[in-house]
Amino acid sequence: MGETIEIPERSGVAFRMAAGELLTVIDPRGEQVADLLAFNAHDVDEVISSGRTLDYAETIRLTTGHKLYSNRSNVLLEIVEDDVGVHDFLLTPCSYDTFKHFYPHLPPHRGCFGNLAAALEPYGVTPDRIPVAFNCFMNVPVDSGTGRLKVLPPVSKAGDRIVFRAAMEVVVGLTACSAPDSNGGTFKPIHYRVDSPA
Amino acid sequence: MGETIEIPERSGVAFRMAAGELLTVIDPRGEQVADLLAFNAHDVDEVISSGRTLDYAETIRLTTGHKLYSNRSNVLLEIVEDDVGVHDFLLTPCSYDTFKHFYPHLPPHRGCFGNLAAALEPYGVTPDRIPVAFNCFMNVPVDSGTGRLKVLPPVSKAGDRIVFRAAMEVVVGLTACSAPDSNGGTFKPIHYRVDSPA
Repeated sequence: MGETIEIPERSGVAFRMAAGELLTVIDPRGEQVADLLAFNAHDVDEVISSGRTLDYAETIRLTTGHKLYSNRSNVLLEIVEDDVGVHDFLLTPCSYDTFKHFYPHLPPHRGCFGNLAAALEPYGVTPDRIPVAFNCFMNVPVDSGTGRLKVLPPVSKAGDRIVFRAAMEVVVGLTACSAPDSNGGTFKPIHYRVDSPA
Repeated sequence: MGETIEIPERSGVAFRMAAGELLTVIDPRGEQVADLLAFNAHDVDEVISSGRTLDYAETIRLTTGHKLYSNRSNVLLEIVEDDVGVHDFLLTPCSYDTFKHFYPHLPPHRGCFGNLAAALEPYGVTPDRIPVAFNCFMNVPVDSGTGRLKVLPPVSKAGDRIVFRAAMEVVVGLTACSAPDSNGGTFKPIHYRVDSPA
């Protein structure tokens, strides 16, 4: 079994996964979001696509059995286990600019956008190539009638996890989210583990 | 007043707009979708972002007064008039691959993805750079409880329009959508016009 690694609060990492490997993302204390990106490891112009994924899935509520597609309609990751069932795939990672907009009273932070950009830079990913992330545990309900969306505290409890199987060799970016509203007002670490196929 | 131009059914165009100019997109017969993309004309790596726009707007139902943001948090277009109020900003333009998936019984079509890629190629936009489009008149309700989304016929009637003001010099891609379900089962043209500020 792979080593469990901690992503400290308000930070991010990037790493490679071989096809077939399993990524387990764990919310160790509960109510903490982890923004996830995935790229084709051999050509980072191929990247996770919310619009293609939601189109194929015909739902915004992605969970076990759903596949995360690239901008070229290939599967990058498949969700194979999910303790929570409430994740977001509508919103881009928070950035310095979105922090200034939503939290004008707080010191601005580079957010998951900045953390992902820094972690992915060694893999050749530039900031302009950071799309909508799959935001593990992020709770963004949409009102059917008005279309209004809200960012509520995650429903994840301590130890809850979501597991992804890589469908090809991928580069993954993963964070412990930095935005107060997304995490019930506190910042906590995220744990993850990469395992070989059984 | 600018000349009204017809985009024939299942095709697309691209053109420049100066800052302050107004783009009117018209559904001449009713129930016809037009996929719209916008790029910074001086640097096409800056592109319309659904995730940034929905985050700032706090709704998926965009209409008059809403701004369409780029991946760099700058405003590209602002909606200044809207006869319809039901548009989609969740789904990517249909492609050859999505056609094969959703319409296996029909001859595949390159879709708005292929039409936008061809129209935008002279401006230096490559297919991998085509993100979620703002899909004018596209009717994609989301169920609050289950998250399920549906692609229903547009609610637009013949002559309905939506008007955008360019906040900077932009390159716009615009189509008459090619997918049966999005357009109530028939393919119709789209009209548009670019006007100077009053």
